[in-house]
Amino acid sequence: MSRILYSLTGEDESRPFSPHCWKAVMALHHKGLEFEEKLLPFTEIPTVEGGVTKIVPLLRDEDTLVSDSFQIALYLEETYPFAPSLFGGEGGKAMARFVEGYSQTTIHPAVTAIALMDIHNMLDPVDQVYFRKSREALLGKPLEEAFPDRDASIAAFTDKLRPLRHMLRSQPFIGGASPLFADYIVFGALQWLRVATGSVHLPADDPALDWFERCLDLFHGVGRSVG
Amino acid sequence: MSRILYSLTGEDESRPFSPHCWKAVMALHHKGLEFEEKLLPFTEIPTVEGGVTKIVPLLRDEDTLVSDSFQIALYLEETYPFAPSLFGGEGGKAMARFVEGYSQTTIHPAVTAIALMDIHNMLDPVDQVYFRKSREALLGKPLEEAFPDRDASIAAFTDKLRPLRHMLRSQPFIGGASPLFADYIVFGALQWLRVATGSVHLPADDPALDWFERCLDLFHGVGRSVG
Repeated sequence: MSRILYSLTGEDESRPFSPHCWKAVMALHHKGLEFEEKLLPFTEIPTVEGGVTKIVPLLRDEDTLVSDSFQIALYLEETYPFAPSLFGGEGGKAMARFVEGYSQTTIHPAVTAIALMDIHNMLDPVDQVYFRKSREALLGKPLEEAFPDRDASIAAFTDKLRPLRHMLRSQPFIGGASPLFADYIVFGALQWLRVATGSVHLPADDPALDWFERCLDLFHGVGRSVG
Repeated sequence: MSRILYSLTGEDESRPFSPHCWKAVMALHHKGLEFEEKLLPFTEIPTVEGGVTKIVPLLRDEDTLVSDSFQIALYLEETYPFAPSLFGGEGGKAMARFVEGYSQTTIHPAVTAIALMDIHNMLDPVDQVYFRKSREALLGKPLEEAFPDRDASIAAFTDKLRPLRHMLRSQPFIGGASPLFADYIVFGALQWLRVATGSVHLPADDPALDWFERCLDLFHGVGRSVG
């Protein structure tokens, strides 16, 4: 088999945490495709496949290389049209971009505010240096000072899922009766938080938590197997 | 023709403002269907069609009555399958519920915070009494005291559109290359703000404003014709 997913790892290879890599993992399982996962620390990404990319996930499928999780999902949909659809048609393909917009602008900053130091601490020493330098350039301050009130960030998190919770009154998944790539977009962000901090910090009776648990159950519990 | 859309009006029938009615108006135009619009003040809604509903939009299509804007869109999609699709397939139908969740939980509260008194002031005196009583019961305080800092509410509004703005990097409409019902969901909320207050309060160079202007241009400018 020459289907390889290059994805991100910290010091412990049993606990992959990247939200974008989780989207690609779930998309490959959704299509029922076998693949070998090759885990890379941040600073080794430019060393594989002739340095084609600085970001993972990177998919090699026979002779094709595709990076970026959304592009990977689009590639899989086009290349394996007879496997279960990741988008449910052209409208779903377009609206998955809106779900991505929500996840990137609403969930990702909220996860970062909670988990920034946890993520840093999961990395190899050499990756910690890279992570600190690149993130501090974006944040304009030391990592430790960026989000000083972690408890407040956790308390603020549940509100970010209100759009999802409202939708869950109508259906069990963003994809409707069953999950689509749009579910994996938001799942990836919450799995990132769960693996990095040990919890998604949602109340026990939260319908959004029930949805996340349903996603953890998918594909023989591939998400749940990482803790 | 016996296709009638019952929708909401204030004192001035030339300025319909209801976000949910705008969704239905745009959906009917999208399907290329002719219809007669019958405008009702809040307190007259229970007097039509034998008191079948307390909410508008209400669509009568020959012998069928459908209320709730999303149900109307689903009905139109099923009944007129050969007219342009409102959802672009089953995935789009499901994800439109997520866009609805975003609009209801993120945009609607933000519009209410800006426009509550403007909406009140657009109503007939008898509807003002109904509106005040029902809204004050929800808010737990006098209308005038619910959102005392209107300028702060306006300043906070632009951030609510970040998911849309992120998506607009990939495509011109939530529906992709052209609009779908999901666009009309968010459009309805912004049109409500525009008609009630005279502006959507977005910066002139905002891609989200460009998107809204594209929606105002649709169907011979039906949205733009109301000011």
